[in-house]
Amino acid sequence: MNTGVETLTYMDQADPIAKAGEELVRIQYSGICGSDMHAFLGHDARRPTPIILGHEASGTIVGGPRDGTLVTINPLNGCGTCHACRSGKPNICLGRQIISMPPRPGAFAEMVAIPSENLLVVPRAELLQSAALTEPLACSWHAARLGLRLQDDPVETLSCVVLGGGAIGLGAALCLRAMGVQDITLIEVNPLRLATLKGMDGFKASDGKDADAPKDGSADLVIDGVGYAATRAAACELAKPGGVISHIGLGSGEGGVDVRRMTLHEITLIGCYTYTPKDFQETGEAIFAGKMGLLDWVETRHLSEGQGAFDDIRSGNTPAPKIILIP
Amino acid sequence: MNTGVETLTYMDQADPIAKAGEELVRIQYSGICGSDMHAFLGHDARRPTPIILGHEASGTIVGGPRDGTLVTINPLNGCGTCHACRSGKPNICLGRQIISMPPRPGAFAEMVAIPSENLLVVPRAELLQSAALTEPLACSWHAARLGLRLQDDPVETLSCVVLGGGAIGLGAALCLRAMGVQDITLIEVNPLRLATLKGMDGFKASDGKDADAPKDGSADLVIDGVGYAATRAAACELAKPGGVISHIGLGSGEGGVDVRRMTLHEITLIGCYTYTPKDFQETGEAIFAGKMGLLDWVETRHLSEGQGAFDDIRSGNTPAPKIILIP
Repeated sequence: MNTGVETLTYMDQADPIAKAGEELVRIQYSGICGSDMHAFLGHDARRPTPIILGHEASGTIVGGPRDGTLVTINPLNGCGTCHACRSGKPNICLGRQIISMPPRPGAFAEMVAIPSENLLVVPRAELLQSAALTEPLACSWHAARLGLRLQDDPVETLSCVVLGGGAIGLGAALCLRAMGVQDITLIEVNPLRLATLKGMDGFKASDGKDADAPKDGSADLVIDGVGYAATRAAACELAKPGGVISHIGLGSGEGGVDVRRMTLHEITLIGCYTYTPKDFQETGEAIFAGKMGLLDWVETRHLSEGQGAFDDIRSGNTPAPKIILIP
Repeated sequence: MNTGVETLTYMDQADPIAKAGEELVRIQYSGICGSDMHAFLGHDARRPTPIILGHEASGTIVGGPRDGTLVTINPLNGCGTCHACRSGKPNICLGRQIISMPPRPGAFAEMVAIPSENLLVVPRAELLQSAALTEPLACSWHAARLGLRLQDDPVETLSCVVLGGGAIGLGAALCLRAMGVQDITLIEVNPLRLATLKGMDGFKASDGKDADAPKDGSADLVIDGVGYAATRAAACELAKPGGVISHIGLGSGEGGVDVRRMTLHEITLIGCYTYTPKDFQETGEAIFAGKMGLLDWVETRHLSEGQGAFDDIRSGNTPAPKIILIP
């Protein structure tokens, strides 16, 4: 439980109780997200302490007619009645809720109560760890889909750049590849992470200055998985005339957007938030079908070691784009 | 001719000579654009002095097989060979040229030499003054089209807001109406202009604070025809979750973009620059078919009075959204 700034406490809590339409899930894998980090650092007003963080989880249904079924959790619900929800976009519902934000506790826990409609069945036990990546990869999938939707040219001819080699950025590179893009460059400045990324197939990894760095004005699509003024400024420079920037990162709230260049060269910036239920399902299916690669770039630690994992991510002291906690 | 900061000189120049593929047009109507104003004020590096400004013109072909044909001028050419040009988008060609920017003199003149492919025939003489509005209205048409293209809901259900009641903003309101939008609010803070706009049919005009002002988070599409930090900030507040901002204005180069709100609520900002040849043609056809209304909101002055017209626009001392100069 996040009990104060940069403080996590491993403690006993009463098991949650499933309401009508909900099921209980015993959590087996629960990933640490960038937004968990923001909350941990005290920067996320949406997640006041004390709160159980965590919203990237997979596990097993406990009790009820589906007892024992392996699932991954879509942590997001809309109100179900507004125009956005009725249009299949609960991610932009003004009443949306995500576990790990009040009033709903998160998945750095042994048990979670969650609506049945939020559960995607995982077909085989050996996929359960990768299934915990469905949520972050669905964010990437959504951003890639929105960015590719605006392209006039065939997907296999496009040049795409992804900024940030965390799970969202790496995931975006993998999603673009799964969607048919051939020319993908992933830019990561942390040398530990970059070394991990350089060993992977299907995309180039660059520090943004080396021989593999893309040229300014060369990208049909830039996915900013970081979201600071510096990455937005880089995205505006990298995008070609008519190009698109999919902006997922929540690093800082403003700055870096070169509106003059965007206007004179018809660059489009798309704000991207999470995923639709359809994105979540398609992402899970792509993972289970092996289209996202081996997904072996994950480090696992026990939930009781959560504080150390957060500290290591904060200090940049881990090569893995994702740490998953195991309760 | 723009001979220095805030200085226009009415002077004799040799008539231009039509090259192969070009025709000579005797200019009869030539509108003053916001970008002419930027150049006049010394703020447009793309238009160093001395230069003949003006790129919104209509007139009559002089000489050749089409002698006497009434036309309006598309002032923009791409290189013709790059990918953008071959895709019908010379407006984002890196080698694009517009008359009134070196090396091509503009249309505040008696004669212009221009490629035949840039000429759109005007069907009747009484349409020739309105035909000079094809260029600015094509900018509006393009921005409206790009903004509506991203909407999932039927056009007649959309709420649209336009910022700025100059020719581009007013034109955007008229284009949206011609495209089937029912709920359009045009925001203009200059009281002289607002009074002119309030008398027009088909949209609401507001100062942004009165009873007709749209609510924050209510607009499916915001068209920013001004492009300063303050209007971009307003656009970000006005757009609803999932909404779109079409950004045409070239007021200032950065600031005002609330990227956090754009990301959390999936707002898209589209940089819009001029128009494609297809937009230009469709705009002309809409004007000639009467779909843009009477277009009687134009003030005309003689070309020799250009300095005074620029001075009046600068001081906000004119109610008309557009002044057209007559050589």
